[in-house]
Amino acid sequence: MATATPRTTGATDTRQRIIDVAVRLFTRHSFAGTSLQMIADELGFTKAALYHHFHTREELLRAVVEPLFGQVRAIIEQAQTQRSRHARAEHMLAGYADLAVRHRALMSVLAGDPGVIDMLRAHGHLGSLIDRQIKLLADVEPGPGGLVKAAVVLAGIAGAALPSTVLDLDEDALRQHFVEAGRRTLALRTPRRPTRDTARP
Amino acid sequence: MATATPRTTGATDTRQRIIDVAVRLFTRHSFAGTSLQMIADELGFTKAALYHHFHTREELLRAVVEPLFGQVRAIIEQAQTQRSRHARAEHMLAGYADLAVRHRALMSVLAGDPGVIDMLRAHGHLGSLIDRQIKLLADVEPGPGGLVKAAVVLAGIAGAALPSTVLDLDEDALRQHFVEAGRRTLALRTPRRPTRDTARP
Repeated sequence: MATATPRTTGATDTRQRIIDVAVRLFTRHSFAGTSLQMIADELGFTKAALYHHFHTREELLRAVVEPLFGQVRAIIEQAQTQRSRHARAEHMLAGYADLAVRHRALMSVLAGDPGVIDMLRAHGHLGSLIDRQIKLLADVEPGPGGLVKAAVVLAGIAGAALPSTVLDLDEDALRQHFVEAGRRTLALRTPRRPTRDTARP
Repeated sequence: MATATPRTTGATDTRQRIIDVAVRLFTRHSFAGTSLQMIADELGFTKAALYHHFHTREELLRAVVEPLFGQVRAIIEQAQTQRSRHARAEHMLAGYADLAVRHRALMSVLAGDPGVIDMLRAHGHLGSLIDRQIKLLADVEPGPGGLVKAAVVLAGIAGAALPSTVLDLDEDALRQHFVEAGRRTLALRTPRRPTRDTARP
């Protein structure tokens, strides 16, 4: 980063500013309720200046979710290297709970906004990621019961992490309770090493 | 209903048609992404004709959610008459799972749409209902752990019930798996009488 030219750094900063404003507006007005014009207005940009970075709202949404999806993919791949079904589910659960706690606003957009879910599913970005996470969590209990429990855990942690819920806990406590809730639902044993280590993949 | 004048029945039907179209558009475009004009267009009404029934989008949203909220209130009140904390949580869980399965589209709007949640919370409609449900479910395990598990169960069942999830099960199977997932998360014993009876309050 220190060797980047000022011009590149400026463009990167602007891109990140646009993404941050977009997440905030998506969370408040939902994806469908947020136009590129609203994002441009919030930034004090002309629409043409915004177009220089993102041509469509869909392109902007992909830029918003891609860093998080990259982290989810990394957790899935690490989980798949674990030896037992229980260890794979435990690793997936701990990693997911950690992401949910660290990205509460973005998770609320991803978990609940009908417009976002449909758009990402239509482009195949979200569907395969959700399916891979569900498979890792559901593997401990084969059959539809395991699939439903895995879906409940994923939706439940993302939904309960919304900043607007009644929960007013610090990040560490919330992460720990999410992992405990998920272990119970999925009937996972509590591993011998402290959760703290597994919760930060 | 048989004694209603044709005029009243007509107005009631029109009101219900507006509500049905609104739910469909909220689910597809989210609440913030759906204008009264879009609802009027979809129905082939003028905006003035729609105003005759609903003056604001917020008024329409209240009409959409009020029947469901009425059912939630009835479940809460029945649950509160149960003798033990476990029986109260079990009754709340079974009733909630049943509603989630029978109103999948509407639950998706209520559980995930940031615009809906903020609007209903701001008017005090949703907050107290969620709090009462969480209290009934969380009572089995006092402290923050019980509260987090209750929030995960409520958000998880609503989120996993979305029509867009991977689950393709019939209503009875889905209801049964939701109740099982909730019982595990909350550490409830399986009651002796069949779930079917308690799942239809």
